[in-house]
Amino acid sequence: LLSKLPDVGTSIFSVMTQLAQENGAINLAQGFPDYDPPRPLLEALARQVLTPGHQQYAPMPGLPSLREAIAAKTARLYGHQPDPATDITVTSGATEALYAVLAAVVRPGDEVLILEPAYDLYGPAVRLQGGIPVYVPLQFPDFRPDWDQVVAALTPRTRLVMINTPHNPTGAILTPADLDTLAALLRNTDTLLLSDEVYEHMVFDGAAHASVTGHPELRERAFVLSSFGKTYHATGWKVGYCIAPARLSAELRRVHQFVTFSVSTPTQYALAEVLPDTTLYDMLPAFYQQKRDLFRELLAPAGFRLLPVQGGYFQVADFSALAPGVSDEDFARRLTTETGVAVVPLSAFYHNRHDQSLIRFCFAKQDATLHAAAERLRQRQ
Amino acid sequence: LLSKLPDVGTSIFSVMTQLAQENGAINLAQGFPDYDPPRPLLEALARQVLTPGHQQYAPMPGLPSLREAIAAKTARLYGHQPDPATDITVTSGATEALYAVLAAVVRPGDEVLILEPAYDLYGPAVRLQGGIPVYVPLQFPDFRPDWDQVVAALTPRTRLVMINTPHNPTGAILTPADLDTLAALLRNTDTLLLSDEVYEHMVFDGAAHASVTGHPELRERAFVLSSFGKTYHATGWKVGYCIAPARLSAELRRVHQFVTFSVSTPTQYALAEVLPDTTLYDMLPAFYQQKRDLFRELLAPAGFRLLPVQGGYFQVADFSALAPGVSDEDFARRLTTETGVAVVPLSAFYHNRHDQSLIRFCFAKQDATLHAAAERLRQRQ
Ligand SMILES: CSCCC(=O)C(=O)O
Ligand SMILES: CSCCC(=O)C(=O)O
Repeated sequence: LLSKLPDVGTSIFSVMTQLAQENGAINLAQGFPDYDPPRPLLEALARQVLTPGHQQYAPMPGLPSLREAIAAKTARLYGHQPDPATDITVTSGATEALYAVLAAVVRPGDEVLILEPAYDLYGPAVRLQGGIPVYVPLQFPDFRPDWDQVVAALTPRTRLVMINTPHNPTGAILTPADLDTLAALLRNTDTLLLSDEVYEHMVFDGAAHASVTGHPELRERAFVLSSFGKTYHATGWKVGYCIAPARLSAELRRVHQFVTFSVSTPTQYALAEVLPDTTLYDMLPAFYQQKRDLFRELLAPAGFRLLPVQGGYFQVADFSALAPGVSDEDFARRLTTETGVAVVPLSAFYHNRHDQSLIRFCFAKQDATLHAAAERLRQRQ
Repeated sequence: LLSKLPDVGTSIFSVMTQLAQENGAINLAQGFPDYDPPRPLLEALARQVLTPGHQQYAPMPGLPSLREAIAAKTARLYGHQPDPATDITVTSGATEALYAVLAAVVRPGDEVLILEPAYDLYGPAVRLQGGIPVYVPLQFPDFRPDWDQVVAALTPRTRLVMINTPHNPTGAILTPADLDTLAALLRNTDTLLLSDEVYEHMVFDGAAHASVTGHPELRERAFVLSSFGKTYHATGWKVGYCIAPARLSAELRRVHQFVTFSVSTPTQYALAEVLPDTTLYDMLPAFYQQKRDLFRELLAPAGFRLLPVQGGYFQVADFSALAPGVSDEDFARRLTTETGVAVVPLSAFYHNRHDQSLIRFCFAKQDATLHAAAERLRQRQ
């Protein structure tokens, strides 16, 4: 049996979660909260599950009421109202949206520009379409794009540029000026844009999320992704969505109908009920900023160099002073098996496993969990 | 924008469901029940949604307890127990399983043998992988495979054969002898098999479902799919699974982790609770046979020629005596808009839109719905 992805193993997130479980480690590796979704959402879903007639196929592009609520939320936050009939597609998590966008637009031989470090599925999912990932590094230590390097990597065969803001794993965010720069670079090309904005509600220190949906020029060529799993602490529910102009959404839907067809009906009804309650997401920047600040303070004595975090729910740390010469994979394993705190080595986000002595912690955890993990990390010394 | 599927429109099921809604027609087009899942399952899910800690990512291949329950069910029904650790993968409906299997094994230029009529996604999903669908017709009027034609279509480049039993749309089933024949045809080749068995629990007149999982030779090269949506009247929950030997499941999982990653956690917990209750699926043959028989009896005076139905929940009917010279698409539209009963034209299941004056009714409906639909169809005359 010839594998189509011979070099791809099990996702690092699964691997580290399993290692954490085997070792009784606190799991700061895989990105998920250890608290539950908001009570009104849980109750809405429990009610929807018992509502007769709400258990069969949802419409393929998503429940109309949920798409309308997404349109209203988008207009409120980013000043642009996508058309729920044609521009919004509900997917089985942002993961399916990502995969289906790539399957819909990337043809064999097309180049896809990926800024690294990047979420582990970007590259393999491009390759599965016969596309060619072209990797451009983000700049250490603040992980901003070097736009000159982006320009140099663009060719007439660049079908798609993939961006991610707030960024996983680094916590960097793009600014409105970055989006203007990107718009200028893509002007007069046919290159499309995929903007992964699943952490849109987690931006700190008073900054606003610069969504591609709010950029009149860029959004015309863009697929913009978000995730209810991140927003509502419900990563296990697997509902996300994609906003794109009608002509692009039509291509996405052509593929989405064959990849999963539709998304859990009762879950969509429940999300549609709750999404108009703006307080549930307006509180997220403060909620996660407190966790970021707490975790950094608790970790301060542990000897890591903590890189800045502008958004998302991950903290990247340089461990080179603590374990010189140790690879990030070995260090991540040791932290998991010996110290009892599971983390992800940053090399997992590079196609060539580039090792910079960096690890990633997820701080979407109860304060008590962050205290316990930091305690173990401090005692390690 | 160049489309990768320029000739593919919106799925016929979405089109007919929307037309039904616009015209207040009884929807016997898209295949879904108009009754709810069993009460114990609904209550299990409502409980799981309120269970702390059950709302985050499930393990990528599926919840262990659900995979164990699937293994036990498979052993009970087909005499072979797949290994839950390596052989079973839970997916976002059988649709995702189908798509992910194709993405995992079909390489550009590979041929994939499809027996027509076929579910509308088979062909386009093969083409999205760069594969070449090779179509072999099932034989009118009983829609059995002509194995000589299958042999003639097999080449050294045939990567995969796709079968579907019980068959959608025709209701034909494969026998143990068919599986033996197929096993002999594939012996000493590297050709893989995808067996879509989502209607496994709906087989009539005392016949037993001949699952590829129960065939010692075939299952070694096969991906076998099933669907909790069909089994539990919960098409809107989007949970299915794939059984395949470890080396094939490993390839599927490589892709599944990038297509959706995992499936709704509370829904998997609820299914794991209920699956050991064998009464819930043991009653399905009698339950659906009664509906088949009722619907055929009610339709008898309406002037259609009703083809035999051995399994599944669809009835195919020949309308040529009622509307000679009318295309099946026009006839399906007229039934929907004028008679108030939505159906699917069988040409939608042929890549070349082959028209045999056939339409498909879904009889997974309350008896009252079947009565009301038949009443409209009888009065049409
Ligand atoms: C789908 S598991 C990975 C979750 C996540 O987004 C991460 O840990 O980066
Ligand atoms: C995914 S909608 C189609 C449902 C179905 O299986 C059918 O109608 O054949």
